[in-house]
Amino acid sequence: MCSVMRKIKPVQRALAVFLRTNTEGSSYAAAENRRSCPGVTTGIHPLRAASRSYSSRMALTEGLLFRQLFELESSTYTYLLADTDTREAILIDPVLETIDRDLKLIHELGLNLNVAVNTHCHADHITSTGLMKKRLVGLKSAISKHSGASADIFLSEGDKIPFGKHYLTVRETPGHTDGCVSLVSADQSMAFTGDCLLIRGCGRTDFQQGCAKRLYQSVHEKIFSLPDQCLVFPAHDYHGQTMSTVGEERKFNPRLTKSRDEFVNIMNNLNLPKPKKIDISVPANLVCGVHQV
Amino acid sequence: MCSVMRKIKPVQRALAVFLRTNTEGSSYAAAENRRSCPGVTTGIHPLRAASRSYSSRMALTEGLLFRQLFELESSTYTYLLADTDTREAILIDPVLETIDRDLKLIHELGLNLNVAVNTHCHADHITSTGLMKKRLVGLKSAISKHSGASADIFLSEGDKIPFGKHYLTVRETPGHTDGCVSLVSADQSMAFTGDCLLIRGCGRTDFQQGCAKRLYQSVHEKIFSLPDQCLVFPAHDYHGQTMSTVGEERKFNPRLTKSRDEFVNIMNNLNLPKPKKIDISVPANLVCGVHQV
Repeated sequence: MCSVMRKIKPVQRALAVFLRTNTEGSSYAAAENRRSCPGVTTGIHPLRAASRSYSSRMALTEGLLFRQLFELESSTYTYLLADTDTREAILIDPVLETIDRDLKLIHELGLNLNVAVNTHCHADHITSTGLMKKRLVGLKSAISKHSGASADIFLSEGDKIPFGKHYLTVRETPGHTDGCVSLVSADQSMAFTGDCLLIRGCGRTDFQQGCAKRLYQSVHEKIFSLPDQCLVFPAHDYHGQTMSTVGEERKFNPRLTKSRDEFVNIMNNLNLPKPKKIDISVPANLVCGVHQV
Repeated sequence: MCSVMRKIKPVQRALAVFLRTNTEGSSYAAAENRRSCPGVTTGIHPLRAASRSYSSRMALTEGLLFRQLFELESSTYTYLLADTDTREAILIDPVLETIDRDLKLIHELGLNLNVAVNTHCHADHITSTGLMKKRLVGLKSAISKHSGASADIFLSEGDKIPFGKHYLTVRETPGHTDGCVSLVSADQSMAFTGDCLLIRGCGRTDFQQGCAKRLYQSVHEKIFSLPDQCLVFPAHDYHGQTMSTVGEERKFNPRLTKSRDEFVNIMNNLNLPKPKKIDISVPANLVCGVHQV
């Protein structure tokens, strides 16, 4: 915890403490938000499990506002989650081009945005986090401590990001970049997987700190270990799909159902063009978008 | 009911009867699917109501599989709904360009697609219904009896479209075209509004049988009468939004919060270009897409 505390500004330490977990995996946030999380049976047939997730599992997250938003140019999904009672909200992977849409919605819904989280330092678009901080008093930015990027809050494995009575737990899932995280809801009904696991796909491993072996390990250890019925909400989709489930991806993902060596061979031979915006996006995202923290 | 029975092929009459309601608004399907629909308080603050809808309301539709799918060229949403136990499914507004994606998903999820419904005769894209019928044995197409289009099943106000223990109820919502319908889940937690009500917008009323007065009346009488927390899933969105609620639209829709006369004036002065594909889409969709029923 000390390393994290040194990196952030003094005025932000209270919030950072609030977000940090201890070695037992509990935290101030967790204590504040402790709630019943019934055990999840993982042996359910993935197809049946997948279909149950959008209904009965959602009942476990009563009082949760959820919105999925899409940015067309980079095919990025932004996620807005809030506590319906306290109105405290978090935003995942907001995009510069859609900042006005997102802020308008947050305003209309009467939400107080606490934290804007980036699942990693994106190469294909510029985050709106920096500009959003200028427009919303008290908003904090968050990103993995391994990302190399500036932010108010540096995230580590097991950290909890609270919003009212809810929270998301950080799972470090490197491979696309060193600083990739996935965010999992308290009842494990939803996982925001960033560019680690996409719907029937995964993030590239051929630039930044990409490593196919690490990505394979991250998905298998940190995401495929979630319940089959856990909904998968990725940072991107290029085929008009909005969600999947862990069970489905474990069964149907064309890359990650392969052996690790086969996966590495696939990833090393994709021969994709360089992302159009990488040369402006990565430097900008290292400082929270075009507007410095 | 007689008029509907005359229009469809004899072999399809049994299914049509299954879908038809009587004048009291009940039907064979409803009887088969009758279930508890607790009363909904409509006086809730729309913002708080809106946020509750995605969580606690979903608990009322346990055993429901739901997927929202997007077609990029025409910005069309296709919806897949299924009973998680019986695997019976329906598809709303499928698009020709994404037929392979949709059929693959239906296959992977182990679903039996009973009915493909079009909310109206689209002008901006070609439906995949006709081609899908050729690929899936037993699949029936459905569209409003006022659409002028061919189909296996002609829908009227109050009809119920069953899939396992679930069903959607037809609400006729003309105005964009004569044959527009909205489809509402049994617990009124979800409304598929086609081109009648869009997120912070509505369908055009300047071609086909468009009529701004009728659209205004449809929205206010058939959609705004639903509970505030009812989720709104439109046939299109052009700004990366995936869902709204009745409460939000009643409060924030920039057109439909106006008086009827103001609304008509807005709609009559949009001066939009003709939809690119209207000359091929409408004739094709009158026969269930490019492949005749």
